[in-house]
Amino acid sequence: MSNENMNIAETIRAMGKKAYDAKYELQGLPEEKKNEVLLKVATALTDNADKIIKANDIDIQNGKDRGMHEGLLDRLLLNRERLEGISEGIRQIVEIPDPIGKVIEEWNLENGLNLKKVSVPLGAIGIIYESRPNVTADAFSLTFKTGNVVILKGGSDAINSNMAITEVIREAIEAEGLNPDFIQLIPFTDRSAVGEMLSLREYLDVVIPRGSAGLIKMVCDNSKIPVIETGSGNCHIYIDKDADIEKAIPIIINAKTQRIGVCNAAESLVVHEAIKDKFLPRFNEAMNENKVELRADEESLKLLPGAKSATEEDFGTEYLDYIMSVKTVKSVEEAIAHINKYNTGHSESIITESKEAADKFLKGVDAACVYWNASTRFTDGFEFGFGAEIGISTQKLHARGPMGLRELTSYKYNITGNGQIRK
Amino acid sequence: MSNENMNIAETIRAMGKKAYDAKYELQGLPEEKKNEVLLKVATALTDNADKIIKANDIDIQNGKDRGMHEGLLDRLLLNRERLEGISEGIRQIVEIPDPIGKVIEEWNLENGLNLKKVSVPLGAIGIIYESRPNVTADAFSLTFKTGNVVILKGGSDAINSNMAITEVIREAIEAEGLNPDFIQLIPFTDRSAVGEMLSLREYLDVVIPRGSAGLIKMVCDNSKIPVIETGSGNCHIYIDKDADIEKAIPIIINAKTQRIGVCNAAESLVVHEAIKDKFLPRFNEAMNENKVELRADEESLKLLPGAKSATEEDFGTEYLDYIMSVKTVKSVEEAIAHINKYNTGHSESIITESKEAADKFLKGVDAACVYWNASTRFTDGFEFGFGAEIGISTQKLHARGPMGLRELTSYKYNITGNGQIRK
Repeated sequence: MSNENMNIAETIRAMGKKAYDAKYELQGLPEEKKNEVLLKVATALTDNADKIIKANDIDIQNGKDRGMHEGLLDRLLLNRERLEGISEGIRQIVEIPDPIGKVIEEWNLENGLNLKKVSVPLGAIGIIYESRPNVTADAFSLTFKTGNVVILKGGSDAINSNMAITEVIREAIEAEGLNPDFIQLIPFTDRSAVGEMLSLREYLDVVIPRGSAGLIKMVCDNSKIPVIETGSGNCHIYIDKDADIEKAIPIIINAKTQRIGVCNAAESLVVHEAIKDKFLPRFNEAMNENKVELRADEESLKLLPGAKSATEEDFGTEYLDYIMSVKTVKSVEEAIAHINKYNTGHSESIITESKEAADKFLKGVDAACVYWNASTRFTDGFEFGFGAEIGISTQKLHARGPMGLRELTSYKYNITGNGQIRK
Repeated sequence: MSNENMNIAETIRAMGKKAYDAKYELQGLPEEKKNEVLLKVATALTDNADKIIKANDIDIQNGKDRGMHEGLLDRLLLNRERLEGISEGIRQIVEIPDPIGKVIEEWNLENGLNLKKVSVPLGAIGIIYESRPNVTADAFSLTFKTGNVVILKGGSDAINSNMAITEVIREAIEAEGLNPDFIQLIPFTDRSAVGEMLSLREYLDVVIPRGSAGLIKMVCDNSKIPVIETGSGNCHIYIDKDADIEKAIPIIINAKTQRIGVCNAAESLVVHEAIKDKFLPRFNEAMNENKVELRADEESLKLLPGAKSATEEDFGTEYLDYIMSVKTVKSVEEAIAHINKYNTGHSESIITESKEAADKFLKGVDAACVYWNASTRFTDGFEFGFGAEIGISTQKLHARGPMGLRELTSYKYNITGNGQIRK
């Protein structure tokens, strides 16, 4: 290990210890105090807009110097309006009821013991994310509201913006007489910093990666800490033989093209052979109008003039682009098997008027969110009514699908007796 | 990699693929069919007692040849009575309602979408365990009942017993016309086999280690698959200044000595200084009668004739033996801080007549189960009324404390619309 790496390792380990030491102080704060701090933070972010925008200018200039393309530069940009949006987001979090300390279940045993299952914070959370600096403030407000301390590792592109935002938040916390280590940001852009963070098992209870499939895979492969996998969505729309085509077309256009770069956008169409002659020409027209390139299997290719021939790889690809694969099947069972083979466990939809086919699909498809006659684009914490979203889980452990405040909690059992001993 | 290791790696990867391929078949079985299979398995295990006992004889003889001590030999032993006990355990699992396919929550959005949060199996589970061969049958019945396929890796001491039990179960499944790969046992005793199993991320949804602290740490450190950490319990009893000593003594005797080798046994006594003069002589007498060695801090040592002086290490040790550490504190807050520093997140108890102190303790102590005036020995799936137990989770993700059938499930969202698209 070089001297520099040793310094990184030591600093990150010390941050882990600080997070651990701060967590019980945070867990002791009542709901009103947590909300008061969040409101102060919201105000501080706009009051310190100049400072944050100045730091952001450096990131933007560095991005331009490195030839960063315009879409990414826009994601990176902070201005007064965006900071007001971030503050407004924090104020909305204040309005959500505190999920901590709720009795989830309660029962009594024959021996007289009373058991209460009570919601508690997870403890200390690590969040690893990419480009957008607004995640820094979002992640803080969600973890703080749920009584969790957080260590953040943002993308190197946004390091100056993230440091400025974190500093403003820490100052606002400290001005309330509280421990600023409720939020810490790893100040290194070196790749080894992520590895060090992922080894803090004694200090962190969970790590949540947010970003590209590559980032998420790296975290899952290397973490010694439990991970909530979020992310990639190879989402399918299945057009059943009993589909209402008038419903199908707007749903596909919405799922594929409303926002192409998001994880709940559709990437693949699966179509029953009994409806393909009637449906595919209408579909082709709609996709042409929306400039979506099609990559079709042999069966559907004949009905899709202009489409390319799909390879095996196409069915497993999350394009995040104006491209869609097309697969023909002979039954709803084959559609389910195809989707279960290629999907990423995110969001899938069946378009049908048959309750029988829908029931099979809803039960048989292995994904966080399975839709009947609706767009996959609804997979989102805000759309679901959670009032917030930390990410969309594609694993089955702990939380699946959109994660709001409740998904940042654990539970404990409080058991009350009057001298019971085990026989 | 040697040829032999390559063979192990390939075999285990092929087993992962088979588990993955079997999981949707299992998920499609209705409750009645699952229960029918479990009853057939229960009968097959006693019908094939001779075969299983013969295999067990080899393990026992190998154990004796290696000088295995008597306690471990007894854990390893299978006889007709124990096999009947195992079968009876499976029949009890049949009686528990199926936790799969239940609507956990349901709500409607303003746009007309109906959302149902439905319980589903986790998918494919890996279980890694040590000595006792009964775990092979237990683990199968719990995972099968919850619609999960399982890959088992038992201890090398019990390899012949485990293989015989697995064979009997697989034959019983196959006789029902179903896929025997609902259960597979890794047939290698080589250490590299565990590493290979922990790399099957594309096939397994979760890994549960059951056994020693060393085994669990190894799994957590090396797994690429999400892990549910089970296990070690450095459990405390805190005697508050307002404790009823008549309640305290029997609770401590029970928690410390009823079964010394289990994770919910107490390992450390924490005592408020205001009650120590009155309490410790009574405690000392009780521990002497039960042959418990005490390791005491400076404050308590004077009141505990015969006790040894405790080191820092003592407070962090799960003895699993007739040994108990003693720590004096000045307040309930100090007791909570001490316990949160040294515990393993398992089970902790406060003995007090003060509701105020109890409330502080129940809220402030960071553990799966926090007791007021009761023995820590109640932390158990059967005692909690779950009807089964796959282990006791000491982590905060997914499940905490005793894990029954429900803790082997995940959920998905089924969302029904009539053409909704996102605005």
